[in-house]
Amino acid sequence: MPELKGFAPPFTESGRSALIPHPPWFYSGDLLTVEYRTDVERVRAILPDDVELAEEDPGAVAFIWADWQSCSDGGAELLDPARSQYKEAFAVVRCRYEGVTYSRCVLIWVTTDFAIARGVYQGYPKKLGSIHQTRPMPFGKAAPRIEAGGRFGATLAAYDHRLAQATITLTGPSDTNGFVNALPMLHHRQVRPIERGADGWSLDEVLTMSGVGFEAGQAWKADATLELFDSPWDDVASTLPVREVISGYHVQVGTSWDGGTTLAHR
Amino acid sequence: MPELKGFAPPFTESGRSALIPHPPWFYSGDLLTVEYRTDVERVRAILPDDVELAEEDPGAVAFIWADWQSCSDGGAELLDPARSQYKEAFAVVRCRYEGVTYSRCVLIWVTTDFAIARGVYQGYPKKLGSIHQTRPMPFGKAAPRIEAGGRFGATLAAYDHRLAQATITLTGPSDTNGFVNALPMLHHRQVRPIERGADGWSLDEVLTMSGVGFEAGQAWKADATLELFDSPWDDVASTLPVREVISGYHVQVGTSWDGGTTLAHR
Amino acid sequence: MPELKGFAPPFTESGRSALIPHPPWFYSGDLLTVEYRTDVERVRAILPDDVELAEEDPGAVAFIWADWQSCSDGGAELLDPARSQYKEAFAVVRCRYEGVTYSRCVLIWVTTDFAIARGVYQGYPKKLGSIHQTRPMPFGKAAPRIEAGGRFGATLAAYDHRLAQATITLTGPSDTNGFVNALPMLHHRQVRPIERGADGWSLDEVLTMSGVGFEAGQAWKADATLELFDSPWDDVASTLPVREVISGYHVQVGTSWDGGTTLAHR
Amino acid sequence: MPELKGFAPPFTESGRSALIPHPPWFYSGDLLTVEYRTDVERVRAILPDDVELAEEDPGAVAFIWADWQSCSDGGAELLDPARSQYKEAFAVVRCRYEGVTYSRCVLIWVTTDFAIARGVYQGYPKKLGSIHQTRPMPFGKAAPRIEAGGRFGATLAAYDHRLAQATITLTGPSDTNGFVNALPMLHHRQVRPIERGADGWSLDEVLTMSGVGFEAGQAWKADATLELFDSPWDDVASTLPVREVISGYHVQVGTSWDGGTTLAHR
Repeated sequence: MPELKGFAPPFTESGRSALIPHPPWFYSGDLLTVEYRTDVERVRAILPDDVELAEEDPGAVAFIWADWQSCSDGGAELLDPARSQYKEAFAVVRCRYEGVTYSRCVLIWVTTDFAIARGVYQGYPKKLGSIHQTRPMPFGKAAPRIEAGGRFGATLAAYDHRLAQATITLTGPSDTNGFVNALPMLHHRQVRPIERGADGWSLDEVLTMSGVGFEAGQAWKADATLELFDSPWDDVASTLPVREVISGYHVQVGTSWDGGTTLAHR
Repeated sequence: MPELKGFAPPFTESGRSALIPHPPWFYSGDLLTVEYRTDVERVRAILPDDVELAEEDPGAVAFIWADWQSCSDGGAELLDPARSQYKEAFAVVRCRYEGVTYSRCVLIWVTTDFAIARGVYQGYPKKLGSIHQTRPMPFGKAAPRIEAGGRFGATLAAYDHRLAQATITLTGPSDTNGFVNALPMLHHRQVRPIERGADGWSLDEVLTMSGVGFEAGQAWKADATLELFDSPWDDVASTLPVREVISGYHVQVGTSWDGGTTLAHR
Repeated sequence: MPELKGFAPPFTESGRSALIPHPPWFYSGDLLTVEYRTDVERVRAILPDDVELAEEDPGAVAFIWADWQSCSDGGAELLDPARSQYKEAFAVVRCRYEGVTYSRCVLIWVTTDFAIARGVYQGYPKKLGSIHQTRPMPFGKAAPRIEAGGRFGATLAAYDHRLAQATITLTGPSDTNGFVNALPMLHHRQVRPIERGADGWSLDEVLTMSGVGFEAGQAWKADATLELFDSPWDDVASTLPVREVISGYHVQVGTSWDGGTTLAHR
Repeated sequence: MPELKGFAPPFTESGRSALIPHPPWFYSGDLLTVEYRTDVERVRAILPDDVELAEEDPGAVAFIWADWQSCSDGGAELLDPARSQYKEAFAVVRCRYEGVTYSRCVLIWVTTDFAIARGVYQGYPKKLGSIHQTRPMPFGKAAPRIEAGGRFGATLAAYDHRLAQATITLTGPSDTNGFVNALPMLHHRQVRPIERGADGWSLDEVLTMSGVGFEAGQAWKADATLELFDSPWDDVASTLPVREVISGYHVQVGTSWDGGTTLAHR
């Protein structure tokens, strides 16, 4: 019997139909970030019981838009760009687990199925959204430049309900691209039993992971606005309300992902 | 600490952001089916090692398009129809496991994230596609009627590559809506460890499930055409090539889903 | 030289690329209507100078959602349903021109390019939107029935800004499907000169048109809610604000369109 | 009576709902071009009777993909990027009219309604398509660089039928970005009478136009592949078949459009 192949389903004899190929996965893109503070109680409320608040600035949140091109080894996806390009909008907080401080993605929207599949594998709670982000371009009046005064907007909607919108105006070079999403990730991967009403989990893991091979251009600080909204299907504003904007950021990056570590099987 | 709520991620204090609510899930829709035979070797090749071919007509396949409206208890999704409506296109074969014959969905595309999430939970290998299906309507020249001579088309594409197209012309009432997708489902739920290059699975289950509360109108038999294609990202035609069309079918249904049974933890 | 063929551009030797074929055009679909009154001054403000308010109930507006399947002679589009199916959401008022009372579509969104092209030809001010409308289906809990108590929702968004949402709950059979969109249409077809800053119009016509061959099922009256919104790109709520809901309606129809009449070249 | 405002319909009291604002319009973007030769008879067949073939290289065609960000005066669209970003794929030939050689866009697909509206105004035969184009990015393995060896892909589909796909591999700097789309445009703006079966046109103009304020980075020559296809709704391959690829090109540009000139009212 021929072996079924593929990193993620569907598995076929050739492996070609697999929704995602095996890592490493490569990413190039533009990141637009607004860091802000929410109520500490709101961060506490979105962390699982076995996770604690970060010691410093526990109410800090990063709301990040990413305009990505991605591929696997060999880069075949790049020449059929529908298979390579997607956008993300996500909210990250920090937390502590077994004494170590991590970043944690608590809400995330993407625009393609392969991005959802990588999320399922990595413990990101991915959903589909309609996501737009101003692009920097080198010529013409219809694009900002990556320089002081450059203005960028970013928006997120799902099911035709607007969930987030941001603007940033670059002020000057920055040593960092913010601090909230700068640590290894701490995620939970959980799958419920198929039996109706069953307690507990069929899969319940705590994972950590980081990108590798990170390269970036000059990061820029920015004045920023961020508005969050709720809808019947998403409580974004009420989950992590904006109490105080800290700063906006813009940077162009390249990175890879090649696996993580299981911290616990619960 | 408030408890995190939700059936599927993301989990929040309110539970509102969960991509799918807990079952039961309700479905109303139109099903367009083309049953055909492929090479028995091709069905063998797409079944896992612990699953056998069906004893009778092992090469039989159903390629099914479904035009669904769905909701959970209370039906709130129905009044915000973007949260309720979606389409599916999927390939089903039969198989045997521990002496029992089952149906098994081996390839499936949907049009929304909540449909993908139900699939992840149920072991359907869901991907996103662009799916279209002729609707029956009672008035005017721009719709078929559900009667002899009624003609319907259905198409599936992904990443701008056409993968399947079918036409059916209703011939007469049918006692059944086909036989290939008429049994309880046999699915595998598998999740790989997060460690790069790790062998085996973090989750590896064999499940069975069926709908409940099934109601349907009169099923119709049809003359049918079905063309399958391959793309760089999908081997549909080479995985389950059409060797002989058996019959087309059309039926309008209502059904529910409220859990399954784990047959094995592997 | 071979003749260029096609009803609307692009014109090619075969005519196959034409965005729309020549009439007659056929339509089958579900219509969900909310009739309401706005301020008479708002209707006056959206009518051109050469058009007067209707004598009776001049502030009456119909906001209509339509879930269409459409085709031309021969119905080839029906079997490739992406070429046939689309949705519309539109606002209609009444007006008087040269002593005759007409209906007039003042705002309209559709979901396909062929629908836009028919609009350009017919003088409908069409834009693209994201449009959803609950479907009636005969089985299951995930669809209303066309009967007293049947509940339907409809939504409209553009550029990820929600512009309109409605709900209707059917109360009983109705002799009519409302009165605002029940008259021949009065539209203007206007094209500006290509010269920058030029006054006037290259094309400036007043047209009237009606559907032909209209058939419908039983219309139903309904209790209705309608909320309109503005966005940076659309002033819907401020253009025709809802002051008093008159009634909702639901009906399934078939109709054709086969030309109109030029009332004036201005 | 308040005056109705807007450059293109719908016209409202505020003018905010107009699908496009008045020019000037600004564009920034990436252009990927494949120039090739088709049969001279095919170019002749797609030109109107009053237009002649170009004297030199009359069979030359440019198939161009453009990844645009666009805005009007003030750039408000840029911060709500859904209102600003779109893609184009279009075929351009050359021709002669009254002794002057022009470029002419004979087939064109776009991804937004505001792009269609500009086309209707400018005489481009615009339709909606699904369009993807590899982006150059400065970091990471998931993007080409604009340098020798940089590889880019571009695809076009409509109604789930693939119509064109290209790849280019940059070889070296180029003095030009090709020659076929380098001249002022010659377009026809034609609108048929609303009367069914009427002969002739309500509007029948010959226009010319050019961009203004053009700026660009270094153009690059490239080895190129281009495949065209037909569908039931588009004859692309049979209209302008690829007989001999001349060259590929890549360039980043900024430009504006601020009106044209009517050459004839026919």
